[in-house]
Amino acid sequence: MADCIFCMIAEGKIPSSKVFESDTVYAFLDLNPVHKGHTLIIPKKHAKDILRLPPELGRDVVEAMQKVGRAVMEATGADGFNVIQNNGRAAGQEVEHVHWHIIPRFDGDGLAFWAQTKYESMDAMNAMADQIRARLV
Amino acid sequence: MADCIFCMIAEGKIPSSKVFESDTVYAFLDLNPVHKGHTLIIPKKHAKDILRLPPELGRDVVEAMQKVGRAVMEATGADGFNVIQNNGRAAGQEVEHVHWHIIPRFDGDGLAFWAQTKYESMDAMNAMADQIRARLV
Repeated sequence: MADCIFCMIAEGKIPSSKVFESDTVYAFLDLNPVHKGHTLIIPKKHAKDILRLPPELGRDVVEAMQKVGRAVMEATGADGFNVIQNNGRAAGQEVEHVHWHIIPRFDGDGLAFWAQTKYESMDAMNAMADQIRARLV
Repeated sequence: MADCIFCMIAEGKIPSSKVFESDTVYAFLDLNPVHKGHTLIIPKKHAKDILRLPPELGRDVVEAMQKVGRAVMEATGADGFNVIQNNGRAAGQEVEHVHWHIIPRFDGDGLAFWAQTKYESMDAMNAMADQIRARLV
């Protein structure tokens, strides 16, 4: 898509530190890593977010996560890694071309996810599940 | 897998607030949500992490993310959602059965990801990309 920075990166029109490329997927280093080695995986064909991704690309994306995830762990000596994908500005999505962050993690690196809460009761929890199920299409 | 709490949930041996189920995938509410409506998607067949997931399940997982993501947004009135998948204890993985967190997000909800850093130079960045590429298999 014109004016999409990630489309331009996948097409080689903007330089990137390429880590992996297949027919359908491209992976490159995030310029602003949480930890060095932090890599972004994108489909070459533009899709705004996970809701617009052609599901048939799921296999290729998983294969890229496996190849890149293993290699990032080995190259950085990481003990684990996160795969994070944000949809919408409210969720922290900054570039409107679906991308997965592969973030190497180290024992005791001090990064913690957001605080979690509780439902008031199992009834309240089941009511929420009902509300979600009612909206599945 | 015996003794795996998520296998038991997918098999119905442990109750859960089910949101979605297909032949290969199961989705249910997280008991300790970041925001209410926070849902977990798992493959029914055991796989410890993304590295062990049969890639052919990628399509089914993406389809589940789309169905569940849309429905969670509508049911909660969310403005966006995160998809988070953790590999290894260092990355925050608490149950050793691969799972994706679908977390509804709201404009201005105040949750922020980890601080990002910079590479010392483009050369340093490209050297890291070289190190990762050298380890791809």
